[in-house]
Order: sequence, then structure tokens, then C-alpha cells
Amino acid sequence: MMSVEEALLNMLSNITPLSVTHVPLSDALGLILAEEVIARENIPPFANSAMDGFALRSQDSKPQQNQPPHLRVTGGVAAGYIAHHAIEPGTAMRIMTGAPVPPGADTVIQVELTRHGGPNGDWVEILQEVKPGNNIRPVGEDMRSGQTILTTGTELGPWEIGVLATLGWATVPVVRRARVAILGTGDEIVDIDQPLQPGKIRNSNSYLLEAAVRQAGAEAYRLGVARDTVASLREKFAEASQYDLILTSGGVSVGDFDLVKDIMAEQGNISFWRINMRPGKPVAFGDISETPLIGLPGNPVSSAVTFELFARPVIRKLQGQHNLLKPQIEVTLANDIPDRAMRRHYVRAAVEWHAGHFVARTTGNQGSNIMTSLLHTNAFVIVPEGGIVTHAGDTLTALMLDWPEVNSWDTLDLQQKTQQEE
Amino acid sequence: MMSVEEALLNMLSNITPLSVTHVPLSDALGLILAEEVIARENIPPFANSAMDGFALRSQDSKPQQNQPPHLRVTGGVAAGYIAHHAIEPGTAMRIMTGAPVPPGADTVIQVELTRHGGPNGDWVEILQEVKPGNNIRPVGEDMRSGQTILTTGTELGPWEIGVLATLGWATVPVVRRARVAILGTGDEIVDIDQPLQPGKIRNSNSYLLEAAVRQAGAEAYRLGVARDTVASLREKFAEASQYDLILTSGGVSVGDFDLVKDIMAEQGNISFWRINMRPGKPVAFGDISETPLIGLPGNPVSSAVTFELFARPVIRKLQGQHNLLKPQIEVTLANDIPDRAMRRHYVRAAVEWHAGHFVARTTGNQGSNIMTSLLHTNAFVIVPEGGIVTHAGDTLTALMLDWPEVNSWDTLDLQQKTQQEE
Repeated sequence: MMSVEEALLNMLSNITPLSVTHVPLSDALGLILAEEVIARENIPPFANSAMDGFALRSQDSKPQQNQPPHLRVTGGVAAGYIAHHAIEPGTAMRIMTGAPVPPGADTVIQVELTRHGGPNGDWVEILQEVKPGNNIRPVGEDMRSGQTILTTGTELGPWEIGVLATLGWATVPVVRRARVAILGTGDEIVDIDQPLQPGKIRNSNSYLLEAAVRQAGAEAYRLGVARDTVASLREKFAEASQYDLILTSGGVSVGDFDLVKDIMAEQGNISFWRINMRPGKPVAFGDISETPLIGLPGNPVSSAVTFELFARPVIRKLQGQHNLLKPQIEVTLANDIPDRAMRRHYVRAAVEWHAGHFVARTTGNQGSNIMTSLLHTNAFVIVPEGGIVTHAGDTLTALMLDWPEVNSWDTLDLQQKTQQEE
Repeated sequence: MMSVEEALLNMLSNITPLSVTHVPLSDALGLILAEEVIARENIPPFANSAMDGFALRSQDSKPQQNQPPHLRVTGGVAAGYIAHHAIEPGTAMRIMTGAPVPPGADTVIQVELTRHGGPNGDWVEILQEVKPGNNIRPVGEDMRSGQTILTTGTELGPWEIGVLATLGWATVPVVRRARVAILGTGDEIVDIDQPLQPGKIRNSNSYLLEAAVRQAGAEAYRLGVARDTVASLREKFAEASQYDLILTSGGVSVGDFDLVKDIMAEQGNISFWRINMRPGKPVAFGDISETPLIGLPGNPVSSAVTFELFARPVIRKLQGQHNLLKPQIEVTLANDIPDRAMRRHYVRAAVEWHAGHFVARTTGNQGSNIMTSLLHTNAFVIVPEGGIVTHAGDTLTALMLDWPEVNSWDTLDLQQKTQQEE
């Protein structure tokens, strides 16, 4: 049987990021930058005031015979405007936060350190000597023209979008968002608003996977459920091949009698694997008319777990992400894990930081048909291969599902090689 | 000056969750369940096979004179169908994973533990004795009719959506998604696709906040930038009051000369606070025609930081979330933090798990106009009030921005009370 790492490496090495497109900045959240962003101007573009106060020459702030200097106020400059004239010796100008420093001034004193008055606010007394550059934000303090600000491959979050707006990038070159087709299989599946006839179950996987695809930042398209007939399967697979990735659920058990595998093989190149894990041993991978396909198992829990382990990293690689894998941390078990599995076991658990440790509590019956074991789960505790018995207090590794991805698949490659050498 | 906790408590205690609506299950991702979900049927609804194999009576699996029992195969049952007849003594039926167990059978043996043959697959030899219930998933093993499966206030992720689909909830009662108006202010602001005239800067805050609102799970509406005129401000505030929450940026410095505060006061009830923090001291909070308003500072970094601290929890409370606050953990500083601030300082930092510790490296110049200090930031390291000098190796608290919210504001209330008692 294949290891999880072998399967994942095999998939990822067959996935190429999607094409580059240009989107309005407002549509770029979560996408991956496809070009370097180099500043084409200085930010701030002009020296400006960090405070509301008075712009002056620093030498005019020196006390005269222990008296605060008395300066003539020649006007004011608000944010968004420029001064009409320069600061001459013995004069000052009122200045607002963000307003350009007028020519001739080399410092700004905040309003609280002055006395000011006159019928038209025409004088100011400087109550404290100030050095050149005081309260002035210099040109290019944040970004310098020609400087590389964001590198190719950066994920665009709110703050990167703020930086792009500052630099005037109204449209942004990004790897386009993946369009993912979701296809259920099996005559036992009815849609969620249908009454249950004997022997039938509702289509939970398509809805679960649709939400999981969206949570991974891609567009999800539910294509419905293929009937177990050649015609229905051919039609659905032809439709699905128009997307960037196909996720199927069900029909990939190696011992199955169903037609799904035959039609997959007919329409594309599909390998069926047994992966050394539970839940979710049987997984298919390949392509239909060059569109990659991942065949997830039909059991809802297996489908959910294999989505996280395989489909989510694949979607991220399609979308140009570099960090593909969830972080793994050491956790202390809060309870025994009674069932011993020969295959590696991804046990659903709630991990919390408690008294200096991450503590993992498993979420009840871990059967692959027990959907409620997914509720309150934020991590998979990994019980290694070989039928290891684990107890409360043991230290194990957990995959943190609600933390951001941190590792590139280069790391995985390395892990894989290390494991092989051991 | 008000503490961050006082300000946040004041805001949150004035926010009421939005109304309940019913959405199609496909649109429910990230929303909060507004009713208890009680199973109206058993899941699975019928006892079914966990394997591909043969259904039989367990007593018929006992070896006869050390020979494997030889049973007549009377048919097969696939997933989605029901058996046409019962299992009689001395007979078996082929059964697929997920198919209902035929009447009369009390066990299933997996196909690998049998020999089978005959012109029409009409016999099977049972190579291993099996107990009653083997490979059978009992009725209601996952969920029992009448059982509470999801409680009011649950956030609907992919797995909760899978559970709802299983139970046939085609539409779901949820707290509706917040519609958030974003309003820039200031004559210095030009839109991102405009050329920069002297004294002008680009509208980065509106784009940054739009993305931040979406990342918080709400709908964002950029209303543009109000000019510093009474007419423009009145018009924009009237428009903004049609939404569920108004976020403004700029115009809330207490020393400012601008009109924003006057018009806010005219159109609603707004308090202006100085909060004992940097960046982002000045913040406004109140309502315009009963729509809550948060006035964020105009500096992009201040705006970004105060969004995370105040606006994000407010949006979450509007949307019915219980967990409103990001987790705080202890981190070890990788570098000195040179500037000593009397106010509490939220220092932008990249926190990584390294050799058994969370290590925080700050992101350069921490000026409130330095947007690049936000890049690579995933946490705010909190330097407490009072001008404390911190060095590499020191232990401080960090707010983990890319971890899910864990704490209710009851916790905050408690923290606040504890602080007051100290």
C-alpha cells in the first residue's frame, strides 16, 4: 500500500498552477500574485506632517533671551493641498496631519506645544525647541521607487491589497481561481430535498465538498450524482472535464462492482490506489481529457478526511500557492484511543492550548460512517502505522486543520526521503 | 484614556446580532446556525453493510466437521436497493458496501474471507466464522431520531454542512450575513486608478477594509470617499446608514479641524475616544440612525490594526458568532523592540513555532504610516503600557491573527474585571 506522503507527492508533482489573469484589486482577495510588485514611486510621495501643528524652520524654535520665539503665521496647509508659498525666517504655517511640509520648513511642532492667537490666527509662540525633521515623515520612508515590495507567489490578504492600492495597482496579475467540479456517484444517493426511499441515503458529500472547496478559496460546481449506468457516467465525466479539477466521491473501492472505475479508465488515465491510512483507504488519481481528477471514497468521513489531506493541497497548488500543507504539532492525548489500526489512523480530535501544552481530545466513535465524529474537530491526531495502542497522556503528532498552511511540498519531499532512509 | 478592553466591551455590549433568515444549504458556509438541529430520523436509516461481501446468518458461518460451510447464494443487493427476499438457513446473498442488510441475515463476511463460484455465482464457502453484527452498521449508529445534533450558535463549516445535508436540511435558519459600508474621508484621498497630484495619496484604506470585511465573512460595500464638505459628508452618511455597520477611516483625530466629527454628531450619536494603544489611538464609536458606526483612524496601519481589534469582533457579534476574540499565546522575542511606548503597543510580528516555542520576529519600522510593516505579519506582539523596554529572548503575549477566534467576550469581561480589581 502507498503511504499518504507518496500519494500526495504523486498528485502534487502532476499538478501545474493555472494560468495568469488580471483581476480588479477588489476581486484579488486570497489569490496569488503572479508578478513582482516594484514601487514606481516613493511612498509617501512627499514629506508630510505626522501631527496637527505648525511647520517652521527648526532654528526659529530656539528661545530668544529665555522667551519662546514669536512667529508670524502666514497661512495653513491641509491634507490634500500644497502650500502657496514658502516658510521665510521668522514665520510658520499651520499644518494638518498628512499635509505636505511647505518649502523652507524643516520641522513641525505639534499644536499642544504652542500658544497661538491673533484675529486671524496670525501668530504662534513656540514653547519647546524642536530639531530638524521633528514630526516629519520623509519621502519614501515606507517604500522607495524601484524597491521590490511584493514577490511573485505572495498570497493577497487585506494588507497586501492595501499596499497594492497605495501603489496604484487597480488591476492585479494573479493565478486564476480554480473551478472545481464535484460529482457524486451511486444509485443509493438522493438529493437533500427528496424523501428517503428504503435503501437510499442523502447526498451529503456533494454539499460537504462544495463548502470545503470554497473554504479552500476555489469555485465549486456541483454537477449532481451520476447514476450507475454507462450513459450517465459518460455524460457526467464529459461535463466535468470542462473544469480545472474533478472531485468524485464514491465508486473507487477497489473491490467494488460499480462501473465508475471502468468509465474513468475509458475517459482518461486513472490510477487506483490503496493508501495506508484510515479512514479513506481507496483513492483514485489521474485525469479526464487532461483535467486532473481525484476520486475520493464514498463514506462521508473518508471523503472529508481525504479532501483535507489530498484535495486541498492540490487546489492550493493549482492556484499558485507555495504553502500547501497544514502544520503538524505535538499534542498530549486527553483520552485513550481504543481502536488499534494497522494502517495509519487520522483520528478526529479537538486540540486546545491548555497549561503550556496542546491537548487533544478525540471526538467519539471514529467509524468512517460516523459524520458526527467530524463535529468539533479542528485537528487530526496521527496514530502511526503498525497497530500502536495509545493512551491518555501520550504525545502524538496532530495536523492542525484550522491553522494556515505553512509547508511547501518540498518539505514533504524531504520528509518522504528521510522516512525512506530510516 | 480608555483601555482596549474597555473600548471593546463598550462596543460589543451595544451590538445585537442581526435577524434570522433561511438560506439554501449551499449558501450557509461560515454563517451561524439560528436553531437547534434535531435529527428527525435515524442515521443510518437502515442497518447496512460496511464491506463488499456476503450477508448470512452468523450460525451458518460455523465450520461443519472442520469444513467451511457451503451456502447457496440466492441473489445480491447493491447500495440503493433492497433485497427482494429474506436470508433462509443455509443461504447467503452478495451485498455491497452501504446496501441494506437483507431480512434474516445478522452478519456480513467480507469477500476476501470467502471462496465463491458457480455458473451464476450461486455458491459461497465461508472461510472464517463470523459473529452476529460483523461488518454491519446498525440503524442510528451515527445519529438517533430525536437527538440534538447541532446547537444554536454553531458556525457552519463544510462538515456541519455535510451533517445538515445528511439530515435533509435543504434550507437552514441562520443569522444573516452583515452588510458593511466602508467610507473614506479626506480631500487628500484619490482613487487608486487616478494619477497622484501633489499633496494627494491613494485610497488604500477602503480597499484594505473591503478585503478585511470579506475575510471576516461579511459583505463589503465601498461607498467611496466623502469630500470635506458638509453636503458630501451628509450624503455619504445618509447612504451608509442603510447598511448593518458603517466603517469610516480618517477624520477622527481629536485634534483635527475637519468636519467629519461634526457631521457624525449631527447625523447620530458618536463618542470619540482616545484609546491607550498604538498604533491607532483615536477611534469613534456610536450610531448613525441606529446603524452602528466605528470610526477608524486614517493612517493605514492604524486602520488595519484597529479593524482587527475592534471591527472584526463587532462583525462577528453581528453575525451571531460566540467566539469573538483571537487567541493570545506566550511568545519569545527574536529581536529587541527598540521604541518604548507609554501606550500599549501592538507590534506587528511574524510568529513561528520553533524548537518548542513560539518565536516572534517583528516586521521592521513600526511607524503608523509604514504599511510594509503589515507584510509577513501574522500576530501582534503586545508590549504593555508604561514604556517597557523589551529585548530579544523576552517572553511577551501575542495575539494570533491567523488562528481562529476562541474566546467569547464574557472572557474579556472577566479579564477586564480582574484588571480593575488588581
